[in-house]
Amino acid sequence: MKPPKAVKNLTDVFEKLPGIGPRTAARLVYYLVNAPASLSQELAKAAANLRSQIKLCSVCKNIDSTNPCEICQDASRNKSQLCVVEEAQDLAAVEASGAYYGLYHVLHGRIAPTQGLGPGDIYLAELLSRVKSGKFSEVILATNADTEGEATALYCAKLLKSARLKITRLAQGIPQGGDIEYADEITLRRALEGRVNY
Amino acid sequence: MKPPKAVKNLTDVFEKLPGIGPRTAARLVYYLVNAPASLSQELAKAAANLRSQIKLCSVCKNIDSTNPCEICQDASRNKSQLCVVEEAQDLAAVEASGAYYGLYHVLHGRIAPTQGLGPGDIYLAELLSRVKSGKFSEVILATNADTEGEATALYCAKLLKSARLKITRLAQGIPQGGDIEYADEITLRRALEGRVNY
Repeated sequence: MKPPKAVKNLTDVFEKLPGIGPRTAARLVYYLVNAPASLSQELAKAAANLRSQIKLCSVCKNIDSTNPCEICQDASRNKSQLCVVEEAQDLAAVEASGAYYGLYHVLHGRIAPTQGLGPGDIYLAELLSRVKSGKFSEVILATNADTEGEATALYCAKLLKSARLKITRLAQGIPQGGDIEYADEITLRRALEGRVNY
Repeated sequence: MKPPKAVKNLTDVFEKLPGIGPRTAARLVYYLVNAPASLSQELAKAAANLRSQIKLCSVCKNIDSTNPCEICQDASRNKSQLCVVEEAQDLAAVEASGAYYGLYHVLHGRIAPTQGLGPGDIYLAELLSRVKSGKFSEVILATNADTEGEATALYCAKLLKSARLKITRLAQGIPQGGDIEYADEITLRRALEGRVNY
């Protein structure tokens, strides 16, 4: 006996999501089968509304309910700082830190030649034109601290060099709660290189 | 800035599913935000149809597209064997093994006094009445090999004792590919107790 078609259909969709294999997908679907019917209806509704209710901000390429996004419309933000991130969820993470109150630019990707992703595939031209407007005094490159993120940051730095403004990169080092003994060599080297007066 | 409402709504639903915390939920939602819109539409449709397109088999309590279910309707199955499982997904796992070709009875739960689940909360009366019909020569108790599963199997065995038919329980032992060195003590004891001639 094969699983019922309705179960298989939902299992197939779940399996397309990142980090969800066949067993996890089946567990999620059977959970919904045994849960009150309202839960699968809630899921259906939220999934149906997701894409129709979000907009791409035409200024910073953030994802929000409005265009321009809440941040670009917020008069109280520091409009002289621009934080460049790879994805909208990175912007959400920086916001959650509570340590930044400037504007953002979401690249929607990274430069990854091995995956066929070049500078033309992300919002770099839009970044350059925003920076060239001359409104910013600092650009913070907050791309990931991995190979592609570093390459993207390096590319951004070169691209924006002619604009003659301060270009910074997030500090690398031991994460909060981190154990020196278990820190990898590169992290430890970066932490030493970037050591601060105490 | 808070995440857009449409993002938050779907994140909240994902968080209600087992094994999905706030970070995983956010990752799944942002994956859907960045994927083609057709994927979230597929998810919406499959979730909306899940509960309306499945039926509870009135005979064996299996979950299927039809009632009675495909297995109960299948004339070629061995109708003298009855395999008792806790959940419909356990039935699917036994089917996938390809080693059983009899009928099933899905209890939809287990006896778990610590969670307030007694014999009256699962399909035990229905099991007893099926077995009393006298059509079966063997009942295989395929509940989980944990405390509640063992308690449920024991309860079933006592309940069905008067029917005077063969009652068996799935063998316990070293799983396929298992390492003796890392097997826990109880598993090893069960494997020794249940050793077979070689």
